[in-house]
Amino acid sequence: MIILGIDPGLANCGYGVLEIVNNRDLRAIHWGAVRTAAATEGTERLGAIYAELKALHETYSPDAVAMEELFFARNVSSAMKVGEVIGVIKLLAYERGIPLSGYTPLQIKQTIACYGRADKIQMQRMVQLILGMKDLPKPNHAADALAVAVCHANSSRLNQLVRAS
Amino acid sequence: MIILGIDPGLANCGYGVLEIVNNRDLRAIHWGAVRTAAATEGTERLGAIYAELKALHETYSPDAVAMEELFFARNVSSAMKVGEVIGVIKLLAYERGIPLSGYTPLQIKQTIACYGRADKIQMQRMVQLILGMKDLPKPNHAADALAVAVCHANSSRLNQLVRAS
Repeated sequence: MIILGIDPGLANCGYGVLEIVNNRDLRAIHWGAVRTAAATEGTERLGAIYAELKALHETYSPDAVAMEELFFARNVSSAMKVGEVIGVIKLLAYERGIPLSGYTPLQIKQTIACYGRADKIQMQRMVQLILGMKDLPKPNHAADALAVAVCHANSSRLNQLVRAS
Repeated sequence: MIILGIDPGLANCGYGVLEIVNNRDLRAIHWGAVRTAAATEGTERLGAIYAELKALHETYSPDAVAMEELFFARNVSSAMKVGEVIGVIKLLAYERGIPLSGYTPLQIKQTIACYGRADKIQMQRMVQLILGMKDLPKPNHAADALAVAVCHANSSRLNQLVRAS
């Protein structure tokens, strides 16, 4: 099973692709961030994010998309900007016919670090450990995307156990 | 010149297509609203909005898209929901290579009714009058979409006058 994790953002949209091997081990396949410049026109920024995420869908054919859900924002205007990116991510999942799950930052932290108030560097070290990565996952937004993908991997394995029992 | 006006919303996304005839008169060609049910899955709702707006693009080949911009929302969560729809509208304009302009409710009201505090029914009557429509434009979201299209028509004619002088 391949999971595409996404940390939505207009300037930096993090992504992380991981694989569940033998229904047990997690392996990071590919990660990074789509960067768009503030000087670029808004429709073009969304177009670039759509194009790069679509290429990831085509290359890795994920079975599921997991996205970090935000319930806070500096203000309504910045919430709308993130919303625009989320709209593009959701549309793409719909077009590809792939289920999309959202996880709150609290859910992700509790799953990865067993602690809802883990800080950024603790989270990155845990992601590195869980995925057996040589280095800390970089950039930050890619680490966040891998974290939400791990979160989804764990909850889907848990669901399987519940169904099997 | 054909203008597609859009009043973005997840439950009701209003649209209005109008034509500038002889660089002077405005004529409403088609209007309505894409409705999606709250019970429907989020990605599917965005997919439906994308599909209907894409069909409008294909049928009417607008030269410009004009969208109502919102700078207020009940809360961050509802701002993000509207943002998702705006993301889909922007992506579509980008894919079709059509310029998209945003207008605030205040700009729209001042253009249509020469008064920033005009109420809904005043606005609908003005839109009906300006576009020479037999009946009040319905539903409300379609009337709002026609209003933003009229707003764009006026500002682009003004720009032409400025360039010509």
